[in-house]
Amino acid sequence: MENKNVLLQAYKQAKYQVTGHGKRDITVLKEALARVSEELESDMYGKGHVIEAFQEKMAAYLGKESAVFFPSGTMAQQIAMRNWCDRKGIKRVAYHPLCHLEIHEEDGLKELHHIESVLLADENRVIELDDVVNMKEEVSCLLLELPQREIGGQLPTYKTLQEISDYSRNKGIKLHLDGARLFEILPYYEKTAAEICSLFDSVYISFYKGIGGVAGAILAGTQDFTEESKVWKRRHGGDLISLYPYILSADYYFDQRIGKMEEYNSGAKELADLYNTCGAVCTLPIKPVSNMFHVHFHASKEQIESILAETINETGIGLTGHLRENGEEDCFFEVSIGDNYFNVPKDELKHAFVLLNKKLKERVLA
Amino acid sequence: MENKNVLLQAYKQAKYQVTGHGKRDITVLKEALARVSEELESDMYGKGHVIEAFQEKMAAYLGKESAVFFPSGTMAQQIAMRNWCDRKGIKRVAYHPLCHLEIHEEDGLKELHHIESVLLADENRVIELDDVVNMKEEVSCLLLELPQREIGGQLPTYKTLQEISDYSRNKGIKLHLDGARLFEILPYYEKTAAEICSLFDSVYISFYKGIGGVAGAILAGTQDFTEESKVWKRRHGGDLISLYPYILSADYYFDQRIGKMEEYNSGAKELADLYNTCGAVCTLPIKPVSNMFHVHFHASKEQIESILAETINETGIGLTGHLRENGEEDCFFEVSIGDNYFNVPKDELKHAFVLLNKKLKERVLA
Repeated sequence: MENKNVLLQAYKQAKYQVTGHGKRDITVLKEALARVSEELESDMYGKGHVIEAFQEKMAAYLGKESAVFFPSGTMAQQIAMRNWCDRKGIKRVAYHPLCHLEIHEEDGLKELHHIESVLLADENRVIELDDVVNMKEEVSCLLLELPQREIGGQLPTYKTLQEISDYSRNKGIKLHLDGARLFEILPYYEKTAAEICSLFDSVYISFYKGIGGVAGAILAGTQDFTEESKVWKRRHGGDLISLYPYILSADYYFDQRIGKMEEYNSGAKELADLYNTCGAVCTLPIKPVSNMFHVHFHASKEQIESILAETINETGIGLTGHLRENGEEDCFFEVSIGDNYFNVPKDELKHAFVLLNKKLKERVLA
Repeated sequence: MENKNVLLQAYKQAKYQVTGHGKRDITVLKEALARVSEELESDMYGKGHVIEAFQEKMAAYLGKESAVFFPSGTMAQQIAMRNWCDRKGIKRVAYHPLCHLEIHEEDGLKELHHIESVLLADENRVIELDDVVNMKEEVSCLLLELPQREIGGQLPTYKTLQEISDYSRNKGIKLHLDGARLFEILPYYEKTAAEICSLFDSVYISFYKGIGGVAGAILAGTQDFTEESKVWKRRHGGDLISLYPYILSADYYFDQRIGKMEEYNSGAKELADLYNTCGAVCTLPIKPVSNMFHVHFHASKEQIESILAETINETGIGLTGHLRENGEEDCFFEVSIGDNYFNVPKDELKHAFVLLNKKLKERVLA
């Protein structure tokens, strides 16, 4: 299997990887644990210093009354939806058609919670105020994902966010933030996390995207909301005897990387510019608003796969290990800028793009 | 809070702890990781060498076709119940009144899966063949917990197990094993895990009881059963990007301790004998059939708490840190024998019991 995937092979063997924070190997955990006192006691089913202190730290950071640590965002967000639906007595929520709950969770929201979804906007753009205002169905909660990952990490304007928030409050619709990449958009909005979160009733954040931890999530809101969430966390089987491997790594990498989000955003803009200088290539968005973007090629996946693999093998610059088909004449991959990007010598990076552009011109545009 | 709990305080400060494997601090994880190659790659959403190899190892150990690693037994067992109910089209399962699903999971089975429970036997004894034969409701699955933890870890005879298994197969009822403490009962039955599991259609095992890992569980059965379980694992939010902290520690401590279960059982029998020599004390069962038992005192919790705390403080032998009320004239605690027991000098242990017995005679029996 490995052998067949020439692109992934080339990426892994490259001298430099352009995306991410580095390999997801056990050194990630070992490094996080290295400086922690050996006598630190485990959390016990959601109690104890290690979990409570981190929950308080994150609640304060997000400007919310309370926060609960979860093993996964899938669990945290379904539970947030369930809480809001139970309170209003309407088992319906609204979100984007490419929302994580709609496409990546095997319909857990529907199968476990019997909550229906109303899909707003279309697949190619973010949710705007008009989509919310024109919604016909009554919903308990509206979920906004910032940035909208599956379309390259796009964002509405901050004014739109404020308007949607005001409108939702007036209409008695709870507003939930899928903030899997919340840290990553703070430089673009030039806001603190707490300022953005003040527009929302509940917030989920993740620790293995921009933060680069092992796994884990936080769900934050009012005290009564998080207390209800803890009951559902136990029902879901997420109230583990020990969550500390995730908590300690989340805490460690949060402190390491929370100050680097502006740098990651700058790196993303710089790298997107390099891609956009190439023929037959277009990034989405053209100018990244976070650390991520998508790179689209107007050609078949097969053709681009070999061009990318060659470019990587000839330059040692690992641009990507994955490529996804998007119809016959389009393929794309996702870029997330992390620590790796800043280890790549700029001249070698630029040289790789000269070569990539040459190959694309000769074999795709010719 | 700590200050008020004199018993827990005494236990923690004692020179020796009689129960368990040791503190649940981060050295448990660090030790498990110490000898693992730093380059070992993380599992990725249920795929990859680290998770697949361990699943195969456990499937082979249990004599089942396939196994899935879960973050928790709560999640694994609800999903097992759901699978069997969906297959038969009857949303009802049978188990003991003190089953984990009935009393420790905030009714997840009912609230998330809308599965009803039929309670067999009564709270003071294990499920016998007659309970199953006389069951009036039609159920999809019967869950047996071996040993029955909440009544001190009691077991039916092996013949009863075989008869229940035969009867269930004939009646088209799936038999599920709550094997949270399966390893711990193998010496008593003088059977391999695979022999016992052959009586069951699905099996759950845990890695932080007798094995002493950080957290995590395995659910095993046929290939199609585990494939269905993986879909529900994602729905529950348990298909984490990385479960390796739990997997690596489960694997490490499995290898460390799987050979010690006979020793733990012997220790439990020896220690129960010591308790039973004391006045006003009775263990449940009288002769432990696993590494665990309960110690009941015919006196108020308040009275026993101070007697135990004094005994611990005066001898340095940490008998227990917890005591639970069971009506006005009874209180009890659970004992699980692990590595700690074998570090306690036998003469000092016996001396503690002489002292305990003296105090009980003077203050409870007098």
